[in-house]
Amino acid sequence: MSDVPHTPLLDTVDTPADLRKLKPSQLRQLADELRTETISAVGVTGGHLGSGLGVVELTVAIHYVFNTPEDRLVWDVGHQCYPHKILTGRRSRIRTLRMGGGLSGFTKRSESEYDPFGAAHSSTSISAALGFAVANKLSDAPGKGIAVIGDGAMSAGMAYEAMNNAEAAGNRLVVILNDNDMSIAPPVGGLSAYLARLISSHEYLGLRSLAKRAIRRVSRRLSSVAGKAEEYARGMATGGTLFEELGFYYVGPIDGHNLDHLIPVLENVRDAEEGPILVHVVTQKGKGYAPAENSADKYHGVQKFDVITGAQVKAPPGPPAYQNVFGETLAKLADADSRICAITAAMPSGTGVDKFAKAHPDRAFDVGIAEQHAVTFAAGLAAQGMRPFCAIYSTFLQRAYDQVVHDVAIQNLPVRFAIDRAGLVGADGATHAGSFDIAYLATLPNMVVMAAADEAELVHMTYTAAEHDSGPIALRYPRGNGVGVELPQVPQKLEIGKGRIVREGKKVAILSLGTRLAEALKAADALEARGLSTTVADLRFAKPLDEELIRRLLTTHEVAVTIEEGAIGGLGAHVLTFASDAGLIDAGLKLRTMRLPDLFQDQDKPEKQYDDARLNAEHIVDTVLTALRWNEAAVADGGVRA
Amino acid sequence: MSDVPHTPLLDTVDTPADLRKLKPSQLRQLADELRTETISAVGVTGGHLGSGLGVVELTVAIHYVFNTPEDRLVWDVGHQCYPHKILTGRRSRIRTLRMGGGLSGFTKRSESEYDPFGAAHSSTSISAALGFAVANKLSDAPGKGIAVIGDGAMSAGMAYEAMNNAEAAGNRLVVILNDNDMSIAPPVGGLSAYLARLISSHEYLGLRSLAKRAIRRVSRRLSSVAGKAEEYARGMATGGTLFEELGFYYVGPIDGHNLDHLIPVLENVRDAEEGPILVHVVTQKGKGYAPAENSADKYHGVQKFDVITGAQVKAPPGPPAYQNVFGETLAKLADADSRICAITAAMPSGTGVDKFAKAHPDRAFDVGIAEQHAVTFAAGLAAQGMRPFCAIYSTFLQRAYDQVVHDVAIQNLPVRFAIDRAGLVGADGATHAGSFDIAYLATLPNMVVMAAADEAELVHMTYTAAEHDSGPIALRYPRGNGVGVELPQVPQKLEIGKGRIVREGKKVAILSLGTRLAEALKAADALEARGLSTTVADLRFAKPLDEELIRRLLTTHEVAVTIEEGAIGGLGAHVLTFASDAGLIDAGLKLRTMRLPDLFQDQDKPEKQYDDARLNAEHIVDTVLTALRWNEAAVADGGVRA
Repeated sequence: MSDVPHTPLLDTVDTPADLRKLKPSQLRQLADELRTETISAVGVTGGHLGSGLGVVELTVAIHYVFNTPEDRLVWDVGHQCYPHKILTGRRSRIRTLRMGGGLSGFTKRSESEYDPFGAAHSSTSISAALGFAVANKLSDAPGKGIAVIGDGAMSAGMAYEAMNNAEAAGNRLVVILNDNDMSIAPPVGGLSAYLARLISSHEYLGLRSLAKRAIRRVSRRLSSVAGKAEEYARGMATGGTLFEELGFYYVGPIDGHNLDHLIPVLENVRDAEEGPILVHVVTQKGKGYAPAENSADKYHGVQKFDVITGAQVKAPPGPPAYQNVFGETLAKLADADSRICAITAAMPSGTGVDKFAKAHPDRAFDVGIAEQHAVTFAAGLAAQGMRPFCAIYSTFLQRAYDQVVHDVAIQNLPVRFAIDRAGLVGADGATHAGSFDIAYLATLPNMVVMAAADEAELVHMTYTAAEHDSGPIALRYPRGNGVGVELPQVPQKLEIGKGRIVREGKKVAILSLGTRLAEALKAADALEARGLSTTVADLRFAKPLDEELIRRLLTTHEVAVTIEEGAIGGLGAHVLTFASDAGLIDAGLKLRTMRLPDLFQDQDKPEKQYDDARLNAEHIVDTVLTALRWNEAAVADGGVRA
Repeated sequence: MSDVPHTPLLDTVDTPADLRKLKPSQLRQLADELRTETISAVGVTGGHLGSGLGVVELTVAIHYVFNTPEDRLVWDVGHQCYPHKILTGRRSRIRTLRMGGGLSGFTKRSESEYDPFGAAHSSTSISAALGFAVANKLSDAPGKGIAVIGDGAMSAGMAYEAMNNAEAAGNRLVVILNDNDMSIAPPVGGLSAYLARLISSHEYLGLRSLAKRAIRRVSRRLSSVAGKAEEYARGMATGGTLFEELGFYYVGPIDGHNLDHLIPVLENVRDAEEGPILVHVVTQKGKGYAPAENSADKYHGVQKFDVITGAQVKAPPGPPAYQNVFGETLAKLADADSRICAITAAMPSGTGVDKFAKAHPDRAFDVGIAEQHAVTFAAGLAAQGMRPFCAIYSTFLQRAYDQVVHDVAIQNLPVRFAIDRAGLVGADGATHAGSFDIAYLATLPNMVVMAAADEAELVHMTYTAAEHDSGPIALRYPRGNGVGVELPQVPQKLEIGKGRIVREGKKVAILSLGTRLAEALKAADALEARGLSTTVADLRFAKPLDEELIRRLLTTHEVAVTIEEGAIGGLGAHVLTFASDAGLIDAGLKLRTMRLPDLFQDQDKPEKQYDDARLNAEHIVDTVLTALRWNEAAVADGGVRA
């Protein structure tokens, strides 16, 4: 934890209007104070640090040169926006970052007019900035669209699609490529049409490959698959051809920490009569804070830490994180099964694929921020007899939905979807919550959808998915650590579409899918205490449903409740649809569905989020009791109650 | 209609193994016969013609040189695969193309081992071929992955993501860029780092822009926004730099109709020890058939036609197509509202945006095959006060699902989604059916989901969407022509979340969403004839539900049926969830949901598809009667029936 630092100049700046009153010679000091304040704040709150430190000077320069908020500044991903928040009227709340009721860890429209477009997922900024630019152009209003996008985010197809359309904006669009790694440019190719036949001959290929290999020796990242687009973006330092071809004026590279370079270049860009312009800025992640600069991950995301030493507050030891259980289980399974592959889209440690990659480097694929490609690549692997696991967060799998439908489900290919961060995600907030995967997957023919109730179940489900060769299968599990159950030594192959009874009772049935099982069991205790004998089932599968089990539970209990960590249209909807199809509701059925509420929940402590969502044990009890009382009231009201 | 042509050499070729027995000197004749046969077949069936004619020689050359099916050939989109089907054992069925029980109009795994990966949506081929290549590499099995992809398909981000990852495959991956337009190369940009400051100055920009303008005069497509990526792909003719930078060896351009060039180049590529290789082939859409060559759209998709004259069978005059009602309505609304914009992703005529573009060219945006960008670009426009309509087919909107969630719904931005081809789509089959949009959209907070029952309703809903500034709104409507109702002179602003009673009855309630309304009314007639007084409601909204109306209908009728042209998780699920939340099911409710079946329906005549899906009037009647009888049976069985 840390005291608020001494920042006399920053104290005079509440908004960019104040900033613009300063002399250029004062900006260096302001940047230094801004960096100090950013470090101090994140020391208190935890969060993203390295990215913000890398753009301190860029943040100052953009707000100094451009007329924000009229000029619409869009930060890609948004995790680098803490210095921006400090300069745009939110300094007084900066130590509430990522807390309930506090500032979001990303840009957010409702927070400030200086956040014209919220973000959190990658690679959206150019499209959005282009929208602002074109809107102003059409209405002949002032104001540019400015996107700040990292080299990593450039690997997503969406960024390419946007660049491909940028010319419409003319000089109203400015893209600032924030390149926070320095690498040697890739080899510059150049072929003329008349060489076509020659170049396809063995000899010429051989020569070329030799040259390529030579270059590899001096380029530490050239052979990294995931790094290709980043390299290409950086390669533009030598000419900017890709951007030029797509209709941009290329400007760069510029030292992104040198305000004496940044300010005049951005002023030129601001006043340019032609466009769109891409400014290539080179920065250093973690810049100006030694512990971050010296750390391998540049303090990308940190816990609270001590500003002097950089030492982060460690979480107390506990059960393993779900992602690691997944990664380690899959690595073990792959020891005995050479068909198993793992694919991640730029999230090796977040998904646990790093554990798999350590054991099986040739079968681990980090494709960069490219979920669409990840899924169809997996489909190709599956069509050729491999057993691919696509490990993608629930919210990011949305970006590959068409590929899930068109390339996997329609063709009934056995791609395994390991869906991490399913459900609420605490401090990461609405943009990262995995709320919709049950609904958007279970509506698809051929799809199997499982949810793990705990880390032992995750082991079984990983194995079950590996063995399921007849079509696609998804397993979802939450952010964070397991509940502390023992991990099975031998994973068990679950029967597809079969749930399990965890606790047998008579009057109340709780049909749980996934990690609300613990709360369901607590609720059962509370209900028993009131004399209501309670069955708890872990359905395991949202699709196919265990119709036999569900039919039995619905017809032998007085009230039944489904619970899931997903939005409307998921398990509850499928159970209701089955009950309706089968005519079970005709004679009366006290069946309720508990699910995530129909709103986007802001960041908060997980317990608070579950409470707000009404998905805790007490809410289950309440739902059951209300349903039971309902009947008494209904009798009095003549059968229907409003 | 046409007779089967005289094709003595083609008659000897059933599979590529037969083809490979021919001498190179015979291939020209074979290609000619293959072209003739293709034209003859499509004359009978209708379908995609121009694309197939453009790749006749390429198809022959690939199968001649490569060892298909062991070498895995993936046709991007797949609409150019008719000659391929003829050469791969399917000639005897080629005159069943796109018919019920016949050959698919696209590649399809279940049809042939020569179709290792099905397609229909664009830009998936490189990812899939890479999957095949890597799988074989991992298992040390023979066989390359070969993707054939058009220049247009290269504008999708997914293709870029795949290219960005291609290096992993080495020489096992071959990408054939089928460039079927010839354009002048874009200006070749080239900037060195030391020019950065200079180039951002006004003077230099001015000079550059002058040069650019000069080039524009000679390049007919350079100013087309949608054409940028295509140009870039073609621009590679002068060097192939993009592909080289991404790790490919570039070979080309090659005349794709000259077998004497194609065969040796492909042989070199096949035997190359290095890779991946991109072969740039230039072809002409509609090649070798004068009516196609001379037509503006190169006979991209045709009705049955006379082979001699090229004259297509015209559909009898009838009600206007939904897409045109939409496009013309929007154009009219935009006359009085300068905020209205329309965005299409490479489907101007398919979506009716061409009608809008004619009236308001500055506010119409064709972004190419780039649905992701389309949606977030629209979000940016909306955030700046415009009223953007994203006109995208239901099935293609899947490709922008994350953008719908993250950029539109979470931010509650008023983007209007005009969702064409919602529901079944006849001859286009499962890959183009719009089955899931109700489920995947209605699960999202903030989203409004409407469905038009007829073309007059579409007019009202277009206007309603335009006026809806408080958040996102979607209107869905089917493929094909309206039902023939009169179009309203003055569009009506519908109340959000309010349905309408179309016919008042007492015993049975049919709750319809969208175009099954006509069948619901027919069913009501049939039910009345049996003495069952029937109410028919057009709910108009799947979200928010008209809870007041639904509650009234469910509680005052003996049996209720929902019907929609969408998969499980949509309207029916939402109505059931409401009925459960409100406790309406507690006392017994004969409520049934009619929806698309839980399988992917193959192409067929629309009436047959609806019949298979059990969504016609007779099925509604059947569902109602079964539900009513159910009760009698239930009494006998003791309350529950299996």
